[in-house]
Amino acid sequence: MSGKRVLSGTQPTGKLHIGHLVGALENYVNLQNEGNECFYCVVDWHALTSMYSNTSAIKEHIYDVAAGFIAAGVDPDRSVIFVQSDVKEHAELHLLLSMITPLGWLERVPTYKEKKKQIKDKDLSNYGFLGYPVLQTADIIIYKANYVPVGEDQLYHLELAREIVRRFHHIFGKEIFPEPEAKITEAKRVPGLDGRKMSKSYNNAILIEDTPEEIWEKLRVMKTDTRRVRKTDPGVPEDCPVFALHKIFSPEEVRKECAEGCRTAGIGCFQCKKFLSEHLIKKVAPVGEKLRKLKENKQFLDSILDEGARKAREVASQTMEEVREAMNLKRR
Amino acid sequence: MSGKRVLSGTQPTGKLHIGHLVGALENYVNLQNEGNECFYCVVDWHALTSMYSNTSAIKEHIYDVAAGFIAAGVDPDRSVIFVQSDVKEHAELHLLLSMITPLGWLERVPTYKEKKKQIKDKDLSNYGFLGYPVLQTADIIIYKANYVPVGEDQLYHLELAREIVRRFHHIFGKEIFPEPEAKITEAKRVPGLDGRKMSKSYNNAILIEDTPEEIWEKLRVMKTDTRRVRKTDPGVPEDCPVFALHKIFSPEEVRKECAEGCRTAGIGCFQCKKFLSEHLIKKVAPVGEKLRKLKENKQFLDSILDEGARKAREVASQTMEEVREAMNLKRR
Repeated sequence: MSGKRVLSGTQPTGKLHIGHLVGALENYVNLQNEGNECFYCVVDWHALTSMYSNTSAIKEHIYDVAAGFIAAGVDPDRSVIFVQSDVKEHAELHLLLSMITPLGWLERVPTYKEKKKQIKDKDLSNYGFLGYPVLQTADIIIYKANYVPVGEDQLYHLELAREIVRRFHHIFGKEIFPEPEAKITEAKRVPGLDGRKMSKSYNNAILIEDTPEEIWEKLRVMKTDTRRVRKTDPGVPEDCPVFALHKIFSPEEVRKECAEGCRTAGIGCFQCKKFLSEHLIKKVAPVGEKLRKLKENKQFLDSILDEGARKAREVASQTMEEVREAMNLKRR
Repeated sequence: MSGKRVLSGTQPTGKLHIGHLVGALENYVNLQNEGNECFYCVVDWHALTSMYSNTSAIKEHIYDVAAGFIAAGVDPDRSVIFVQSDVKEHAELHLLLSMITPLGWLERVPTYKEKKKQIKDKDLSNYGFLGYPVLQTADIIIYKANYVPVGEDQLYHLELAREIVRRFHHIFGKEIFPEPEAKITEAKRVPGLDGRKMSKSYNNAILIEDTPEEIWEKLRVMKTDTRRVRKTDPGVPEDCPVFALHKIFSPEEVRKECAEGCRTAGIGCFQCKKFLSEHLIKKVAPVGEKLRKLKENKQFLDSILDEGARKAREVASQTMEEVREAMNLKRR
């Protein structure tokens, strides 16, 4: 795969953590370095679907996310980094697609049903939340993206995007869009400090922007295998969230040594965490330092986002011309 | 009422007929002449909610509607005549409002339920059709309209628009929009040639653009009270669609004479129609002539619509600045 159009969006709903780094962001960089034409979008309108009642932080998180992209290695000269709401064409295409998207398709989206069931602290019974996948489809196809890096849970959304594309082509008799394909991101389970999935909302995250000292302070008190009450109690590495991080950040020999030491009670959790912290910090700290520096210079970030929006708009407005033409909406 | 903002939209779904003239259009002109600041919008995006599968005629009907406005007396120098899709801000506001509009509000809209039940030849089970009142709300409040001339059947939509406005103000803590009020259009029942409601889709309409000869040809064969099989059979004017048109177009003495003649079999239906045609043509023909002339000069119509879009955009983009500010979506 090379030389294809790639689109991915990240919601500005919080600061980025190391789960983002080893999941989405490294993938972003790889896709860019493989020679694809990448559009990386901070999807602030999407954030509204669930955060409409508390939007005060979105602005700040747009910078968090954009700076995170760049700090991780996304190159603004090679990839297009931009904010969704800077390209109004997404809203127009969303509206036009809404006219041809059967309600039933949306009501059957598994993540829609799941989230409505699971998330109780936010109001998700809005028209816009139901239309989330329509907006997502607009985001993707307005750039004629071939690939969308997604996790397994987003596969149905991509399927829906393809269905909408096919329906558009069928109704208006013109083939405008490639059918976007999912590029599955290898799902690395990144546990948080309490052993649950790392997430800003669980308050169990190691942030990319944490300093080495802050990272160590968090790791130091991180939950380990509960069998190891005393240093002399042996543990089971596979049950320990610290070991799960070892698997991501530490080289094999260190991982082996720690696993062995855990099973035999040969090393304590403190020592095991020390090893982890060394390697985790080696990987995260340089990114974190860049991130902190970038965030100090919002003017610079704005200039990158402005230029990204300009490039994105160029492509999006061209696509919209074709869409309006196909739908007979162009008077002249 | 004077000096208020007025917004009204007309779908470009067909040629305008005399029902439009004595209903909406005369009202448009009155509102303008009373000194209101009127925005008259050809709502092509709305037409898509039910016509998405056959959009080929929308373009032409945009000219039909715009020319109809002007021919009826809407003055492009005093009122803003424009096409909805020329002002992309409507789509952006629609998207933003979709985030705060509860699904239940939309599912309960009586016209939604009714149309889904009644209209069987068009597919109305789309996401966009459900969101129709959200787009309508955006159309209205983006111009901070105080009044919206509507028929009785649209009252619930206006109520919904006010609810959305209140919800917006409540959530974002800023009062941006006036709550739009319905300005009820006196519902004149304008029967079609077959006695049913005049409608393009029933193919029973007298078009504004019909020539006097065409109007007479249509009236000549128009359905009358079925009691009058022979000229010597007396009839009941109240049951005759021709008489319903007399009530709209003929002066009182003519109406009286025809009613009397009908009840006593003193005049025949042909004569009665001749009287009607004289007065109906007197009113409609000058408008029809202007309409036909306007439609011959699309370039002129385009220049008016372009200027209207420019004026509309000026107001709409200013409102959107306030909206983005209130929703914390402005970075700088």
